[in-house]
Amino acid sequence: MMNLTTILSETLDVATKGYPLSSPALPISAIGAQRWSLLAGDLPLPQAVICDSALAHNHAWMRDFTASTGVLLAPHGKTTMAPQIFAQQLAAGAWGITVANVQQLDICVRFGVRRIIMANQLLGRAEVGAVIHLQEAHPDLEFHFLIDSQAQLTSIERVADSQSMSRKLTALVELGVAGGRTGARTFDEAVGVARVVAASKTIALSGLECYEGLQITGDSGRDEIMVAGLMQRVHDVALACDREGLFAGRSIILTAGGSAAFDIVARDLPMKLSKPVLTILRSGCYVTHDSGFYNRMLEGVKARSGTAWQSRPGLRPALEVWSRAQSCPEPGLAILTMGKRDASFDLEMPIVCKRYRPGIDTAPQPAPATWKIANMNDQHAYLRFSADDDAAPQVGDLVGCGISHPCTTFDKWRALFTVDDDYRVTGAIRTFF
Amino acid sequence: MMNLTTILSETLDVATKGYPLSSPALPISAIGAQRWSLLAGDLPLPQAVICDSALAHNHAWMRDFTASTGVLLAPHGKTTMAPQIFAQQLAAGAWGITVANVQQLDICVRFGVRRIIMANQLLGRAEVGAVIHLQEAHPDLEFHFLIDSQAQLTSIERVADSQSMSRKLTALVELGVAGGRTGARTFDEAVGVARVVAASKTIALSGLECYEGLQITGDSGRDEIMVAGLMQRVHDVALACDREGLFAGRSIILTAGGSAAFDIVARDLPMKLSKPVLTILRSGCYVTHDSGFYNRMLEGVKARSGTAWQSRPGLRPALEVWSRAQSCPEPGLAILTMGKRDASFDLEMPIVCKRYRPGIDTAPQPAPATWKIANMNDQHAYLRFSADDDAAPQVGDLVGCGISHPCTTFDKWRALFTVDDDYRVTGAIRTFF
Repeated sequence: MMNLTTILSETLDVATKGYPLSSPALPISAIGAQRWSLLAGDLPLPQAVICDSALAHNHAWMRDFTASTGVLLAPHGKTTMAPQIFAQQLAAGAWGITVANVQQLDICVRFGVRRIIMANQLLGRAEVGAVIHLQEAHPDLEFHFLIDSQAQLTSIERVADSQSMSRKLTALVELGVAGGRTGARTFDEAVGVARVVAASKTIALSGLECYEGLQITGDSGRDEIMVAGLMQRVHDVALACDREGLFAGRSIILTAGGSAAFDIVARDLPMKLSKPVLTILRSGCYVTHDSGFYNRMLEGVKARSGTAWQSRPGLRPALEVWSRAQSCPEPGLAILTMGKRDASFDLEMPIVCKRYRPGIDTAPQPAPATWKIANMNDQHAYLRFSADDDAAPQVGDLVGCGISHPCTTFDKWRALFTVDDDYRVTGAIRTFF
Repeated sequence: MMNLTTILSETLDVATKGYPLSSPALPISAIGAQRWSLLAGDLPLPQAVICDSALAHNHAWMRDFTASTGVLLAPHGKTTMAPQIFAQQLAAGAWGITVANVQQLDICVRFGVRRIIMANQLLGRAEVGAVIHLQEAHPDLEFHFLIDSQAQLTSIERVADSQSMSRKLTALVELGVAGGRTGARTFDEAVGVARVVAASKTIALSGLECYEGLQITGDSGRDEIMVAGLMQRVHDVALACDREGLFAGRSIILTAGGSAAFDIVARDLPMKLSKPVLTILRSGCYVTHDSGFYNRMLEGVKARSGTAWQSRPGLRPALEVWSRAQSCPEPGLAILTMGKRDASFDLEMPIVCKRYRPGIDTAPQPAPATWKIANMNDQHAYLRFSADDDAAPQVGDLVGCGISHPCTTFDKWRALFTVDDDYRVTGAIRTFF
């Protein structure tokens, strides 16, 4: 089994994007002691960094939020795929970790996570076989996957029939939304799937799942109605399944909750059934938060969550991508050494936050609000600014960008350095994508 | 120094996305002998695979194309960042390899590449220091980077002043396009930069560079005029620099050429100067080609390249991403186990090419042309099809997609399996992103 010591003893070198070009290979445990400075030019650019103080703040914020609402948290691990961060989340009180597929499950199990939700349909000979193997090898592993069709059940049973199993698999019936992604669309479909699962000799029904995140608009009134309606559908199906005695475990799992409206889920999903109910949020992006989409959604969360949450600081963007102006070829345009391989671009372009002029600034300064990333190629970004800007970017200037959607920045880096508030490297976070 | 043996002896295991979940860790050299079958379900999905026969065809195609036009090739290594593929490209006659930054340069040098163009501005204390170090450590290394401003030159000289150098750095002046990316916009600017480089005690002028790829439209008439105009500008600057004796080497490098209109570059860029001219294309995407953007652009290349090239088979898409229908939740919609982490989505969505129904099909069948990927989330794709389709996808079906823009699929995988025409794994290609 791997554990965090395995990661800390792993050696990084220049083959890892972002590693200092002139440094010898070092174990991750030795990186913090090097005191590399982003601002002093010790690191090649581009560089994605995680700010220690913001990360710690976000862990505490979500711990307090879930404690105050009484729900459990299985943060979506697909965001970071970083066992070091999973360990921090569990230490901050998370019930378990959520994953998106069996490879991610395997990583979690290797690193000692023992309560895992796969927020996805299990399917496939290799995948089902691996899950059975993991469950047999780890009697303390509690693993729940999603199911939304009879066809899926049949397919799993076909694989399971050829394997020896000392206990059943456990699954959550997924409720979906018309026009949405996966999940049973109607009450009848959902209860129908729950019934065939409950009758299966291979799979036990452990609860219900849905995901409200894809329908969130940022319009709080609309979002409240949509999420409340979806939670009501979960309640209706849960009551029906409970009445029929379809749930197999000692408790019943109800889980929902992305990172955009988890407050409504925390308020509306809990319910009473004939057994104890575990209400589990799966928010993943809160941990680094962002400077774009989720930062805008947080305004809604705060507004809906009462005065205590409005007055305290919200989640803080912990993930930044730094690059350098490599060319200022015409008025109003600077080209940065950062591209689609380095920073998220799927929801919107990176958000310019900071500038640092080597030899002039003693600390990063806020970038003018008019500076915008207009476009990115594979390895370049186009920074547009007002051509009559007094403080126009110069060749060699450092530019710090916040990002929108942490998942698609994390997966571009095999290791991300953590930094203190002076942008000195304190360590490295390994990702497993 | 690393070499291909280092890669082949590297061990892969389930921590690498796509690795068979039930297989023990194996050195890359042992993977081919496992005879894993994608179609039999030996591999977890999603899975990005490189088709051996198409890859070999593309190597031969480009070798023949450059041989017939008399230009040299330094394929852009950023596409694959795979030293195993670099070695194939060099074995097929490539003059050198192109890179996008110093980390990529370092990877190439480690793996023995000795002629490298960095199609980007060099800048930064860490980066300049690393280049000087590499040049001093490898007397046989020929390395050219881009320069497009006096500010960049000054910045490099400031770093170089503190280092001991037994030979100069060598740079290509970049010509840019108004409204484009990097590069001097005018004749006067370009010649001005060439003059200060030629006068530098740190940097020698080795040639000129430009990149026509960002302005390619696919309209052959417009593209011909645009590229021909840009090549004429290169000629004008080259003649002026040559007349002034600014080029320092025994030969002069002129380089341009992405993967969309390299034929026009090969035709229009060559010229006579007072010393031998090395005309170097930098196309990178040809090696796996694609099923989208570059496949459309190839039609123009073939049409412009004479009857011999029209009648022979063109480049073939060698890169596919396979996934599984995990849910068919409403008429006309199937959700696939493939997302933004697995396949390119920056130019367009993946292109559905093949389907395979386990237990029904003996080989992959062409997918109906009406099947389209409408959207992707981080870990899911939305396959839309006609709701009255006789052969609608079923839960468990395998779907093979071509991609558009190989660069942004390669960077999503730490290793990609190569497969034979029956989709049996023949080996693995390691990437270094």
